[in-house]
Amino acid sequence: MPVDKHYSLIIIGTGSGNSIPTPEFDDQSIAIIEEGRFGGTCLNVGCIPTKMYVHAADIAYETREGGALGVHGHVDRVDWPSIVERVFHKRIDQIAEGGEAYRRGPETPNIDVYDQHARFIGPKTIETGQGEERRVISGDTIIIAAGSRPQVLPVIAESGVTYHTSEDIMRLPEQPSSLIIMGGGYIALEFAHVFDALGTKVTIVNRSEQLLRTVDQDVSQRINEIIAQRYDMRTGVEVSAARDVEDGVELTLDDGSTVRAEALLVATGRIPNGDLLGAEAAGIDLHEDGRRIVVDDYGRTSADGVWALGDVSSPYLLKHVANAEMRAVRHNVLHPEDLRPMPHTHVPAAIFTHPQIATVGLTEDEAREKGLDITVKIQNYGDVAYGWAMEDTTGFVKLIADRSTGKLLGAHLIGPQASTLIQQLITLMVFDIDVRDAATSQYWIHPALPEVIENALLGLEF
Amino acid sequence: MPVDKHYSLIIIGTGSGNSIPTPEFDDQSIAIIEEGRFGGTCLNVGCIPTKMYVHAADIAYETREGGALGVHGHVDRVDWPSIVERVFHKRIDQIAEGGEAYRRGPETPNIDVYDQHARFIGPKTIETGQGEERRVISGDTIIIAAGSRPQVLPVIAESGVTYHTSEDIMRLPEQPSSLIIMGGGYIALEFAHVFDALGTKVTIVNRSEQLLRTVDQDVSQRINEIIAQRYDMRTGVEVSAARDVEDGVELTLDDGSTVRAEALLVATGRIPNGDLLGAEAAGIDLHEDGRRIVVDDYGRTSADGVWALGDVSSPYLLKHVANAEMRAVRHNVLHPEDLRPMPHTHVPAAIFTHPQIATVGLTEDEAREKGLDITVKIQNYGDVAYGWAMEDTTGFVKLIADRSTGKLLGAHLIGPQASTLIQQLITLMVFDIDVRDAATSQYWIHPALPEVIENALLGLEF
Repeated sequence: MPVDKHYSLIIIGTGSGNSIPTPEFDDQSIAIIEEGRFGGTCLNVGCIPTKMYVHAADIAYETREGGALGVHGHVDRVDWPSIVERVFHKRIDQIAEGGEAYRRGPETPNIDVYDQHARFIGPKTIETGQGEERRVISGDTIIIAAGSRPQVLPVIAESGVTYHTSEDIMRLPEQPSSLIIMGGGYIALEFAHVFDALGTKVTIVNRSEQLLRTVDQDVSQRINEIIAQRYDMRTGVEVSAARDVEDGVELTLDDGSTVRAEALLVATGRIPNGDLLGAEAAGIDLHEDGRRIVVDDYGRTSADGVWALGDVSSPYLLKHVANAEMRAVRHNVLHPEDLRPMPHTHVPAAIFTHPQIATVGLTEDEAREKGLDITVKIQNYGDVAYGWAMEDTTGFVKLIADRSTGKLLGAHLIGPQASTLIQQLITLMVFDIDVRDAATSQYWIHPALPEVIENALLGLEF
Repeated sequence: MPVDKHYSLIIIGTGSGNSIPTPEFDDQSIAIIEEGRFGGTCLNVGCIPTKMYVHAADIAYETREGGALGVHGHVDRVDWPSIVERVFHKRIDQIAEGGEAYRRGPETPNIDVYDQHARFIGPKTIETGQGEERRVISGDTIIIAAGSRPQVLPVIAESGVTYHTSEDIMRLPEQPSSLIIMGGGYIALEFAHVFDALGTKVTIVNRSEQLLRTVDQDVSQRINEIIAQRYDMRTGVEVSAARDVEDGVELTLDDGSTVRAEALLVATGRIPNGDLLGAEAAGIDLHEDGRRIVVDDYGRTSADGVWALGDVSSPYLLKHVANAEMRAVRHNVLHPEDLRPMPHTHVPAAIFTHPQIATVGLTEDEAREKGLDITVKIQNYGDVAYGWAMEDTTGFVKLIADRSTGKLLGAHLIGPQASTLIQQLITLMVFDIDVRDAATSQYWIHPALPEVIENALLGLEF
């Protein structure tokens, strides 16, 4: 097919990809291809809206639990449609639409927007489209930031059962009275908290007995203890059949039992979109899974002039990593003589379930496998004053430090504000601050919650 | 009077003072004098129990405000007696009693406890008592950690009106239906939030128009805007008379108006207890106020061998400062050849009202008065993703940095988790991390609340 237009730069995907064109690119002709909503997964169906639902869920949960603190309240009514309206119509959709209008508008005259699927048909050559019109475009430089999508197992995908994923569950017009969640990772756990707290009966179905298996084992064990008290857990089972029934869906499990609910959320992980791009035609190598694009330390694919970043190529499916990779790739495209490596050091992550979980660095098992001489401290929230105020009984901070250097190797938190508290520990790791100095050379406001970090640091034995 | 017993060390006060005797003192004979409850102000009537009430109040407040998030709840009932029971009888009092029993028990055979007021009657000589028995004791070294007490203005103290202070208000057997709070500092603001959130009608009476005048002016202005919407404010007025009436108390204000409520809380500041110790008899100088003991950089009073720390002598009435001063004095008493200065650098503080306030370093006005070349950024919570989740409209982080060095000079926060978020900024100041590096050299979990700090750092212009 003939090439309709040639560009200096083509960007596939508008999650982190949309942040590539800084003023330094103003003299380049650029094509941006986005077949979905501008802003990508994080903005439209991921990190941002989920946290808006989680915060509402936190309020509902704490309202119900307040009796233990002498504050007897209850939730009269959850206005689900108003949450959908507030999160999406009033906030997210406006940002997405504004982002697209900006790229299509007069402020970025050097940028064309294509809104159809992108598929390589040859080296540096892509078939896409604008509305009904098919277009073939080529570029000197191509940056693939095409993201990932929910993984749906064949037993569900091929069954014809009505199911939802994280990409549509938040936009349901009505809140389901009951929900089966398939999966055992962070997406499953965040939505389990959201729906349960807002009043939906939640059943979790998961293949392995233990959920959230990849975090530090003490954290994993604790969250599994907590969720076992809260949800209807069907673990260590596989789904053998799924079908729609009168009032919802029914799953048949391989132990012969069945579970029913009004709705089904499939949260069995996400997969990179590298398999959807015709990578082979462009000489772009994929990993063995056939889905994740291979990149080198600097974001270069196996095809000359073609780069990739974010979920489609990264070992991390995290928005803050995608953004950092985007900055590295942007720099590298502009300054090929001064390549910066992809930033994969001290990468933290948080899970906004209840209680929150946050983690950075090595787990205890990983540190021991490396043969490091480590010191480990587990500090309970319940043993510091602010934890008393919260009457917290399940939260802790686990720190792993190198006994010979005093450096923090890993931090794993479960408890209130874990996603905030961990930042202090990221700072210690990045700026190479000895944990002994960190504990004693700075003030810790009494009796604020960071005292749980202070005491964890003080508890590391050297 | 003859000396009944001589000690190596006498400690007056069991707040931070009770932490002086580490094992290094095991071969010293020690007297500890405590006329009140073991543990001092913070444990018994200050930081710790107030935060326990504040957290319950936070839950009640958020329950009522949840409608804005689509979670319509309400507080059916606040069980005040259960809070008193939980905070004091089940927690605080047991710690205080355990602390005293330990000092009186066989584990610390070198320590005697005196439970009557301490008053110097000569150099290094103190009159005190044990129960009914008066005792005169002397010591080679004396450490005064006698704390502070609520200030009660004569118009109240001499009126005969029934009033409470922070020292007894939390132990009221019943929650008052209405409360007048006199004062405009952090104690007044914390209790205003506590009582209002738990359902008491709160009226604030304050001499100046502006409350919380000593914090950064932007923060002060914001909290004044917020409280003006929430409480019945009577500011710019003095109390001219006070009396008990049938259902409570009545204050007459100098504008001729009166206010009535079921109870009165006097929260007009705290004053050091240096005036109650017969300091003159021991040659211990006091500041001009006649109440605060003069100490040098190392905690030494004007009397040889007599040291002081904490509220009775410190420029800061903060528990974390008292504890740090205690560690310095303990070291200095043990190692007179290697004196450590009192730790008064980068001292943070938090106010657990609603929203929370936290502060460290110079205010903008202070930095400008010093003639520093500064860069200032005010970052709203409402402009980062987690602030969207919270639908926050009033919180911000204000940073003040030195334009020539990139060092953080001051940080002033008002908003959710302010008392947690500020720790990251304390770390930057203490470990001398350039704000530009702090913003860009570490990961900030997306979309966690610390992004408000990240964006504040990024917003500083150089």
